[in-house]
Amino acid sequence: MSQNNGFSHPHRPTHECGVCGIYGHEDSSKLTYFGLYALQHRGQESAGIVTSDGKKVTTYKNMGLVPEVFSEEILQRLKGHISIGHVRYSTTGASNIINTQPLMVSHKGTTLAVAHNGNLTNSMSLRRDLEDRGSIFQTTMDSEVVLHLMARATQKGLDEALKETFTAMQGAYSMLLMTADTLIAVRDPDGFRPLCLGKLSNGNGGYIVASETCALDLVDAEYIRDIEPGEVLILQNGEMRSIFPWPKQSPHFCIFEQVYFARPDSDIFGTSVYLARKRMGKILAREAKIDADFVMPFPDSGNYAALGYSQESGIPMEMGVIRNHYVGRTFIQPTQSMRDFNVKVKLNPVRNFLKGKRVIIVEDSIIRGTTGKSRVRALREAGAKEVHMVVSCPPTRHGCYYGIDFPSESQLIACNKSVEDIATYLGLDSLHYLSLEGLVEATGMPWENFCLACFNGIYPIEPDKSFTKEALD
Amino acid sequence: MSQNNGFSHPHRPTHECGVCGIYGHEDSSKLTYFGLYALQHRGQESAGIVTSDGKKVTTYKNMGLVPEVFSEEILQRLKGHISIGHVRYSTTGASNIINTQPLMVSHKGTTLAVAHNGNLTNSMSLRRDLEDRGSIFQTTMDSEVVLHLMARATQKGLDEALKETFTAMQGAYSMLLMTADTLIAVRDPDGFRPLCLGKLSNGNGGYIVASETCALDLVDAEYIRDIEPGEVLILQNGEMRSIFPWPKQSPHFCIFEQVYFARPDSDIFGTSVYLARKRMGKILAREAKIDADFVMPFPDSGNYAALGYSQESGIPMEMGVIRNHYVGRTFIQPTQSMRDFNVKVKLNPVRNFLKGKRVIIVEDSIIRGTTGKSRVRALREAGAKEVHMVVSCPPTRHGCYYGIDFPSESQLIACNKSVEDIATYLGLDSLHYLSLEGLVEATGMPWENFCLACFNGIYPIEPDKSFTKEALD
Amino acid sequence: MSQNNGFSHPHRPTHECGVCGIYGHEDSSKLTYFGLYALQHRGQESAGIVTSDGKKVTTYKNMGLVPEVFSEEILQRLKGHISIGHVRYSTTGASNIINTQPLMVSHKGTTLAVAHNGNLTNSMSLRRDLEDRGSIFQTTMDSEVVLHLMARATQKGLDEALKETFTAMQGAYSMLLMTADTLIAVRDPDGFRPLCLGKLSNGNGGYIVASETCALDLVDAEYIRDIEPGEVLILQNGEMRSIFPWPKQSPHFCIFEQVYFARPDSDIFGTSVYLARKRMGKILAREAKIDADFVMPFPDSGNYAALGYSQESGIPMEMGVIRNHYVGRTFIQPTQSMRDFNVKVKLNPVRNFLKGKRVIIVEDSIIRGTTGKSRVRALREAGAKEVHMVVSCPPTRHGCYYGIDFPSESQLIACNKSVEDIATYLGLDSLHYLSLEGLVEATGMPWENFCLACFNGIYPIEPDKSFTKEALD
Amino acid sequence: MSQNNGFSHPHRPTHECGVCGIYGHEDSSKLTYFGLYALQHRGQESAGIVTSDGKKVTTYKNMGLVPEVFSEEILQRLKGHISIGHVRYSTTGASNIINTQPLMVSHKGTTLAVAHNGNLTNSMSLRRDLEDRGSIFQTTMDSEVVLHLMARATQKGLDEALKETFTAMQGAYSMLLMTADTLIAVRDPDGFRPLCLGKLSNGNGGYIVASETCALDLVDAEYIRDIEPGEVLILQNGEMRSIFPWPKQSPHFCIFEQVYFARPDSDIFGTSVYLARKRMGKILAREAKIDADFVMPFPDSGNYAALGYSQESGIPMEMGVIRNHYVGRTFIQPTQSMRDFNVKVKLNPVRNFLKGKRVIIVEDSIIRGTTGKSRVRALREAGAKEVHMVVSCPPTRHGCYYGIDFPSESQLIACNKSVEDIATYLGLDSLHYLSLEGLVEATGMPWENFCLACFNGIYPIEPDKSFTKEALD
Repeated sequence: MSQNNGFSHPHRPTHECGVCGIYGHEDSSKLTYFGLYALQHRGQESAGIVTSDGKKVTTYKNMGLVPEVFSEEILQRLKGHISIGHVRYSTTGASNIINTQPLMVSHKGTTLAVAHNGNLTNSMSLRRDLEDRGSIFQTTMDSEVVLHLMARATQKGLDEALKETFTAMQGAYSMLLMTADTLIAVRDPDGFRPLCLGKLSNGNGGYIVASETCALDLVDAEYIRDIEPGEVLILQNGEMRSIFPWPKQSPHFCIFEQVYFARPDSDIFGTSVYLARKRMGKILAREAKIDADFVMPFPDSGNYAALGYSQESGIPMEMGVIRNHYVGRTFIQPTQSMRDFNVKVKLNPVRNFLKGKRVIIVEDSIIRGTTGKSRVRALREAGAKEVHMVVSCPPTRHGCYYGIDFPSESQLIACNKSVEDIATYLGLDSLHYLSLEGLVEATGMPWENFCLACFNGIYPIEPDKSFTKEALD
Repeated sequence: MSQNNGFSHPHRPTHECGVCGIYGHEDSSKLTYFGLYALQHRGQESAGIVTSDGKKVTTYKNMGLVPEVFSEEILQRLKGHISIGHVRYSTTGASNIINTQPLMVSHKGTTLAVAHNGNLTNSMSLRRDLEDRGSIFQTTMDSEVVLHLMARATQKGLDEALKETFTAMQGAYSMLLMTADTLIAVRDPDGFRPLCLGKLSNGNGGYIVASETCALDLVDAEYIRDIEPGEVLILQNGEMRSIFPWPKQSPHFCIFEQVYFARPDSDIFGTSVYLARKRMGKILAREAKIDADFVMPFPDSGNYAALGYSQESGIPMEMGVIRNHYVGRTFIQPTQSMRDFNVKVKLNPVRNFLKGKRVIIVEDSIIRGTTGKSRVRALREAGAKEVHMVVSCPPTRHGCYYGIDFPSESQLIACNKSVEDIATYLGLDSLHYLSLEGLVEATGMPWENFCLACFNGIYPIEPDKSFTKEALD
Repeated sequence: MSQNNGFSHPHRPTHECGVCGIYGHEDSSKLTYFGLYALQHRGQESAGIVTSDGKKVTTYKNMGLVPEVFSEEILQRLKGHISIGHVRYSTTGASNIINTQPLMVSHKGTTLAVAHNGNLTNSMSLRRDLEDRGSIFQTTMDSEVVLHLMARATQKGLDEALKETFTAMQGAYSMLLMTADTLIAVRDPDGFRPLCLGKLSNGNGGYIVASETCALDLVDAEYIRDIEPGEVLILQNGEMRSIFPWPKQSPHFCIFEQVYFARPDSDIFGTSVYLARKRMGKILAREAKIDADFVMPFPDSGNYAALGYSQESGIPMEMGVIRNHYVGRTFIQPTQSMRDFNVKVKLNPVRNFLKGKRVIIVEDSIIRGTTGKSRVRALREAGAKEVHMVVSCPPTRHGCYYGIDFPSESQLIACNKSVEDIATYLGLDSLHYLSLEGLVEATGMPWENFCLACFNGIYPIEPDKSFTKEALD
Repeated sequence: MSQNNGFSHPHRPTHECGVCGIYGHEDSSKLTYFGLYALQHRGQESAGIVTSDGKKVTTYKNMGLVPEVFSEEILQRLKGHISIGHVRYSTTGASNIINTQPLMVSHKGTTLAVAHNGNLTNSMSLRRDLEDRGSIFQTTMDSEVVLHLMARATQKGLDEALKETFTAMQGAYSMLLMTADTLIAVRDPDGFRPLCLGKLSNGNGGYIVASETCALDLVDAEYIRDIEPGEVLILQNGEMRSIFPWPKQSPHFCIFEQVYFARPDSDIFGTSVYLARKRMGKILAREAKIDADFVMPFPDSGNYAALGYSQESGIPMEMGVIRNHYVGRTFIQPTQSMRDFNVKVKLNPVRNFLKGKRVIIVEDSIIRGTTGKSRVRALREAGAKEVHMVVSCPPTRHGCYYGIDFPSESQLIACNKSVEDIATYLGLDSLHYLSLEGLVEATGMPWENFCLACFNGIYPIEPDKSFTKEALD
C-alpha cells in the first residue's frame, strides 16, 4: 500500500472539520467567512471558501487560520449569493495544501464543489470501483469519492444523482455540495456529526447551514432546525426542499461532540453543550465524592464540568491556573530544562494560592495522558498538598472511524492501563471517570441515540478493517 | 510646542510597561525573553532586550509581541550574562519604533541602557534644563532624561551619579539600568509600580528583577523580595548591594495594579492579586446584594471578583459568554451591521442558557463604557431578563500621572455621569461600584500605603500641570 | 461555456513553461531546484517539484519564483532519487495555485505526476470523451488530460499505455511523467519545444532532463543529446530505454525559442542561441543599412543581435540605457505624471551621451508596441537626434497554438499596421525587420525544420478552432 | 575601547551611502523615494525619509531596499513639502536599525535631521569634546556629531551655527540637514563625494539635491549644477542662498566614484561616468596590447571599459557570460560541491562559445581577488584556451578614510601580492592594470582635482590614526 501514496497522509481515515454554507445572500462569502471564524475550533489547519454568483464559481483556500487565510480583498473577489466553506483540523504538521477543502472539479461544463465533515467507512472500496472504471484521484481525501460518484450519475438528474451517490456512501458525513446555482446539505442517516439550518436576518434574507449553532449566532441568523439524519436538503431556484434517500432509522449522534469537540455556546443534537457539560460535572460529583479545598478546571477544557461539580458538591471552584493570553502557536524552547515549561508558558499555577491545598482538577477527557502528567506536576511544585482528578467522560479505549482523529489505540492511555495505573502515571492522589450511564444521562437523551464507540467499542457501522490494516502498512 | 515634534506622541506622559532583567546567568537574554513573555499583558506594542557579556553590549528591539519580535537566532546573537528587557503598551496605533525601549546610549566609552515602567512628573523641566546645557534628545520618552542625567554625573562615580540622577527625578518609575558590567534596579520612593527580585535556580544561579512575580514563575526563579520603594539595587562584580538616596517615606502603591493591571497569578506589593480580587468580589457581594439567577464574569477581566461575589452571596457563578480562542488582533468587519459584532466575535453569549435569566455581570472596571454598553445589549438580545452589573472598584474619575494610560477625563464615563446615568447608558437594571473603603480592605494593607488618585483625586506627587497644558498645544 | 468554470483561466490554451527532471541521484530534489532556477526565465508565476524515493512520493508547489517557493527545509522533505519540476509563466495576475504543476494523481495504488511545457491542440475533444466516460477534472490545464488517458490505459502495461496516450494527444509537448519508480520524458513528434538529456557528474551519476542546456550547466551535468521529436524516454530500474510511438516525420522546432524565449547560454535544437542571435543581427545589418552614430540594445533583449549588427556594420555598439538592478516586480507609481516613468525606473537613458546622436536600437521582437513607444520617446527626450530600430525577426502577425502565450491577434501591432505605420506609431525615423529568410539562415538549419507560424501563418498542426471559439464565449 | 560599544560596528569609520532631498514640492516624500530608488546602488542595507510640512516632522526608516522599506501607505503618512532621504550600504550582515539614517533629534522645540554620505576624520575627538561637555550618543555614526554641534551652536542663529559646526568637522561629507522649515545641503571643501542640485519640472516646481544626477533623471528634474565643494546651500522661506564657511581650496574628488561607485548614467564632478569609464578602457587598450579572440566584461561591472577597450583595440566585444536575472540576494547552497556554483548561478559562461577561445576579461577593479579567481576558473572549465584580464584602474593598495568601505589593507590583494602573483593567484595568462596617469587622463580633469589615496596612498586630509588604532582594539 505504501507505494501508491504521494502524499503525507495516505488515505488518513479520520479528522475533524467544520463546514458552513450560505444560500441567497449577496455577501455570501463574507458571511461564510464569519461562520468559519466561529467554527475555527473544529479545524485550525486550513480554510477555504467556494462562491458562485449563479454562473461563475470562484474559490480560495490556503493553510492557516481563517483570519490568516482570508483578507478583505480576497473576500471581495469571491462574489456571489451562494458559498460553502470548510475548516480542517491540524492532525499533524505534515499535512498539505492538496488536502484542503472545499474540493472543486468540473465535469461536462458543470462545476461541483464539496465540503465534508466526517469520514466514509467504505471509501476504499468505492475508490477501487471508480478506479476500475477509469477514475483518477488527485487527493487522498475520502471526500473526493463523492465528486466522482456525482459526476457519473449526473445524467440521471440532480435528485436521482444525489440518491444514488449518497446511498452508496457509508459512514459519517455532514456535507455541503455546491454547483453554480445550487447548495445541497447532506447528513448521513446516523447523523454522527451535527449540521444545522438557520435563517439570515440581515439583508434580504437567505439561509445558513453550519456545523454548529455558534456560527448562526455570529451572523445574527435565527436557528430553524437541525438538518435531520438521512436528509438531503436542496436550496435551488430560491426554494428549499428535502429528499430522504434512506429508510428511517435511529440516529447515532457522536457523544464526544458533547464531551469535548463542540463549542459550549452551541446547541448540538438539540441540547445545549454548556448545560450538558455542566450536568456531566454534577453527576460526576455524585459518583466521585472527594474531600478537597477546591475544584479547578484547566482552562478552558473542563470549565463547565467544573462548575457543575462545584455546584453539586458544594466545594468551591477556583481558577488555580492562569492562562497567558499571548501565547502563540510557537514559542522558543528554553535551553536549560525549566520544569514543565510547556504547561507554565500557557497556564501558570497561582503559587501562593495552591500552597498546602487539596485540589480537584476537572478534565473533559484524558487521551494520551502526557499533558495531564506535567499539569499535575506543575500543581505539586506550586505546593498543592493533594491533587485529585475527575474526568467528565469514561475512559477512552477505542478508535473513532467516524471523523474524530484519535491517536491509535496503542497511544490511548486507557487502552493500556487500569484507572489505578493511570492515576499513578499522572501522579494523582485519586482519579475518577464519569460512568457511561452518567454521561448519557447528562445529555438528556436516550442511550440508543448515541454512538458511544470510543467508550464501549460498539460501532454502529462496521469500520473498514481491511482498509485500516492497509493504512498501517 | 507643536513645531518641534516629529513624532507621533510628543512627550506623551502616560503608558504602562513591563521590565525584566537578568544578572549572572549565561542565558540571560533567553531568560529575559521568557520574563517578558510572562509580562506581555503589561505591553503589547513593542519589545526589546539589551545584553552584555561584560564587555560587548548588543541589543534588539522591534514593534510587536514578544514572540513576534524575537527568534531563536536573534536571541543567540544577544550573548552575555546580563540583560534587561522591556515591553511597551500599545497606546495608539500611531506609536513608533523610535520610542521602543530599552534605550541605549554611549558616553565616554561607557554604554548605558535603560528600561522604564512609570512616568516622570518633572521630565519637561529636567529636559529644558538639559537642553539649556546643550543636550539633544532623540526620542519623546521621559526615560531619555535619565540617560542624560547619568552621563553628566558620571565622573562622580556610579553611586553618586545614581543618587544625583534619581533624586532629581520625580514621579513613578520602576526602572532597570545597565552598563556593560552592571545591572541596576531602581524603584521610586513612592513605589507606585511593582518591582521584585528573584533567585534563579537553573544553571549556575544569578538573579532576576521583574515587574511581577509571574515572570519569576516561568523561569523557575525563587521569589526573594520586592525592590523596596526608594531602593537602588546594584548588581556588580558578582555582588548585590543597595543604596537609598531618599529619606524614608510612606509608599504609595498603585491600587489599580491590584484591580486590573497585574496578572492574577502575581504577588504585588506583598499580596496575591488573585486573592485580592476575590476579596473585592466578596466585599462587593456584601455591599451590593442583588437577587439574581447567577453571577457571570466577562472573561477574563472579572473572573476572580466574580468567584468572590458568588462564594459570598451564594448565587451560583456561570460562564454566560464563551470566548473564541482564535480571535486575532484584527478581523474583517461585516459589511452589513451585525449587531454587537465586535463583542460577539470574541465572546458569544450562551443563548439557551441566558434566556429568561436574571444575570449579575462582574466587571473589574468601567473606563469609557462603550464596551460595556454593547456587552449588555448582547446579553439582552440573547434573552437575559435582568442584567445587573457590579464593578470591583469605585468609579474611575481622575487621570493617572504615574504611568497608567487612562483616557483624558472627558472620556472617563464616571467623570461625566452619575452612577445612575451610567446604568441607564449601559442599559442595566442596576449598577453597583465597590466602595473605596471596600477596595482598600480587599488588599489587606493600610489605606495610607496606596495611591488612590484615579478614584479620589488625591495625588501623592503634584502632576506637572504646566507640562500638561503644553502637551495639549 | 462560461457557466462551468470556477477558474480564472478557463481552458486557457497557451502559456510557456520550463521542466526539469532528475533520475538516479540522491539529491534529486535539490538538483531539480537548481535546474528550475536556471529555467526561471521560462516561468515566473509558480514552481513545483515532485520527488520519489522509489516508494514514497512527496510534492511541494506554490506561487512565486523558484527561490521564493522552496527553502532548504522544504527541499529536505522532498527525499528521493527521482524528481520532476516545473516553472510556469505568469500570463496574467489572475492565475491560480490550482493550475500550478507538476500535477499529481493516484490511480489504483500508483501515483502519477506530470510536468508539461507546450499546448495540446485536441485537449477539448479528449476532455469531452473522457467526461462522457465519467472522468472529472480538477484543473483547467490541458495537461490533466494525459493523466486520465494514462490511468485508463494502465492495465495494458507501461509501454502500451504510453503509446496509446501519446498517440491520442496532438499538439506541442515536452513533458515529464513520473511514477514512484520511473521517470519518463516525452517530446511530441514535431518537437516544437526543446528538451535535452544530460549526465550528472557529481555524486554517483544519474541523469537530468531539462527544457534547456543552461539547466545542465548549473548542475555540472554533461550534455548528451536532445530528446528526439517523437521520442518517449523511459528511465526505470536504473536503465534508460526509448520507444517511438509515431511514424518518423520532419520536426517543426519553434523558431521563437531561438529569437526570444530560450536563454542565450543554452543550445537549442542543436544550435547555440547566442550565436544564432548574433547571426540574426549580422544578417539584419546586411539587410538594413543605416547611417548612425551607434547601435544599442535595450538590455537585455537585443544584446546579442546588437553585437552582430555592430560587428557586421562596423557601427560601434554602446549601452545607451542603464539598467537599475534593484527594480523589483512592483514599484509605487508617481502621483504626478513623470514622463516614461515605467521605462526610466528600469532603464535610464544616458542623457549626456545620447544628446545629438543618431541611434539604432536593436530589439528582438515587437509584440504590442507599447513598451517600444515609450522607450523611443525616452531616448528622444534624452536628446537623441535620430532613432532607428531594427528587429531581429519578421513582423509577428499570427497567434501561437503550441505553447507561447502571445496576445490575441487584435493586440499584435504587426497584425493591424504596416511597417511604416508601426514606425510612425513608435516615433521612429526608420524601422526594419529581419526577413524570414534571414531569420532561418541565422539558425543554420533547413527551413522545413521549423514552425514559423507566428510569422507566416502556416500551422504544422491544425489548431482547434472550435475550442478557441468556445474559450472566447 | 571595546567596553564602550554596545553596537555591532563600534565607530566603523567607513561606508558608502546616498542622499536625496526635496524642497518645495507637495509630494516631497514620494519624489525623495524615487530619488533613493535611483540611488539604490549606493546603499542596499537600509533606507529612510524625514518629511516636514513646515511644522510637523515625520519619519520612517527601516532595514531593506527602498521598495521593501516604503509602501504607498507609508509615503502618504510622510506629508509635507520638504524631505530628506538616505540609503545606506550594507557593510556586513551585523549592521543594525539603530544606525539607519536620517538621524533625527529634537532640541529646545526644534527638530533637526541629518542624512550623511561620507566619513568624518575627526569625529572621535569631536565626540570626546562633546562628551566632556555632557553629550551622550545614541548611535556609533559619526553623523551624530553634527547634531550635537548644531544643537550647541543654535542660539547663535542658523548661519553662524552652520559655520561653526562645519568648520569644526573634518573629512568627507555630502550632507543634507533639515529642520521643520529648512533644507540645507553641505559639501565638504574637498568635495570628496558628489552632490548635485536640480530643478523639478512637475507640479509647482521646487528643488532636488541628490548624490548623483541619475536621481534627477528619474523624477524629471533639470540638472542645475553641482553643490560646490565648501558650499552650504540653504533652502528656506521659498528661497535659496549659499554660504561658504571655508577659504577657497582645490577639490579632491574621489576618483573611485568614477571607476566603480557611481552609476554609469550619472554625471559626476562634471563628467559623464559612462564616457569616463569608456575612456579608461580605451587608454587601457593602448597600455595593454593583447592578442585575443574577444573582449568580454563580467556584467555589469566592466561593461563600459570593455566597450572602450574593444573599440580602441579592434578586438570584438562579446557577452561571454549570461546573467540570470532572477537571482535574489540569497540562494540555497548545493549539498555536493558544484564547481564555481556561486559564480554560475548568477553568470553562466556560454560554453559552446568560449570553447578554444582566447579571452580578455575587463574588470573595473580587483579588491580581494576571491570572486575573480572563481570567475576565471569558470571560464576555463567552459573551455577558454587563454584568459587575460585588464583592470580599468591601478592596483588598490590603500584604505579609504573618506567614505568608501574597503576591506582592511591586509585583505587587499594588491597590498600583499605583486601583479604577477595576483595573475598566478587568479589563474590568468596575463593581468594588466590601468596606469594612474591613464586613469586620471580618462576623467578629463586635472590630476590635482582628485583624491587618489586608494591608489597612491597620498591622503588629502590626515586620517585619524589614533582612532583607527582604537577601533581595532
